[in-house]
Amino acid sequence: MVDKSSRLDAVFHALADPTRRAMLHDLGQQPRTVGELAAPFDISLAGASKHIQVLERAGLIQREVQGRVHLCRIDARPLHAGAEWIRHYERFWNRKLDALEALLKAEDAARPAAKPARKPRTPRRKP
Amino acid sequence: MVDKSSRLDAVFHALADPTRRAMLHDLGQQPRTVGELAAPFDISLAGASKHIQVLERAGLIQREVQGRVHLCRIDARPLHAGAEWIRHYERFWNRKLDALEALLKAEDAARPAAKPARKPRTPRRKP
Repeated sequence: MVDKSSRLDAVFHALADPTRRAMLHDLGQQPRTVGELAAPFDISLAGASKHIQVLERAGLIQREVQGRVHLCRIDARPLHAGAEWIRHYERFWNRKLDALEALLKAEDAARPAAKPARKPRTPRRKP
Repeated sequence: MVDKSSRLDAVFHALADPTRRAMLHDLGQQPRTVGELAAPFDISLAGASKHIQVLERAGLIQREVQGRVHLCRIDARPLHAGAEWIRHYERFWNRKLDALEALLKAEDAARPAAKPARKPRTPRRKP
């Protein structure tokens, strides 16, 4: 439970920064070196490395060391826990909409003219 | 674009803490006062207020001031943007699985015995 919670902390924390989200977007295209990941941003290599470490701690990046080159690959699996967490509240949101719909239907059914649902419209003004 | 990005920053940052996630869970049951929200946690009222402010900045809580009582309600709508962001990577993840499946099917089709798919199994050892 604690492990799952701290993994969620790490995943949401990793996603709470536009540079890190952009890095994940880049890695969604293909694996990249640390230098390639840093290139589009106006930050130092050390700054980029810190962002990459945050993504690594969340399990969203796998780093492969090939001599002096560090190749990073996306690992989207930890996102599932985050998606599941959010989905719970989407259900909650949908339930509110369902309750509203049920209320409107109940009000409709309680109107004096019984079952007017499928009755064809009669013109208000006759010629 | 900047606004959407900073909203995502705020939402993911709000979700990156177990106390704030637990508060949202409580608010999913019913609206709560600040005191009620703070009660389950071993934190000061001031500490709880800071967490509530983070949730408010992300638009996840609406606060209604009724005299001296501040009543908090969940607003799950900002979570949609977060869910959409994550879904993009789930699709990416699924595409990887689809690509793997396609590769396996292609390998299968390229085997010497043409179209063995629906051929019934023949026993290896005959009596």
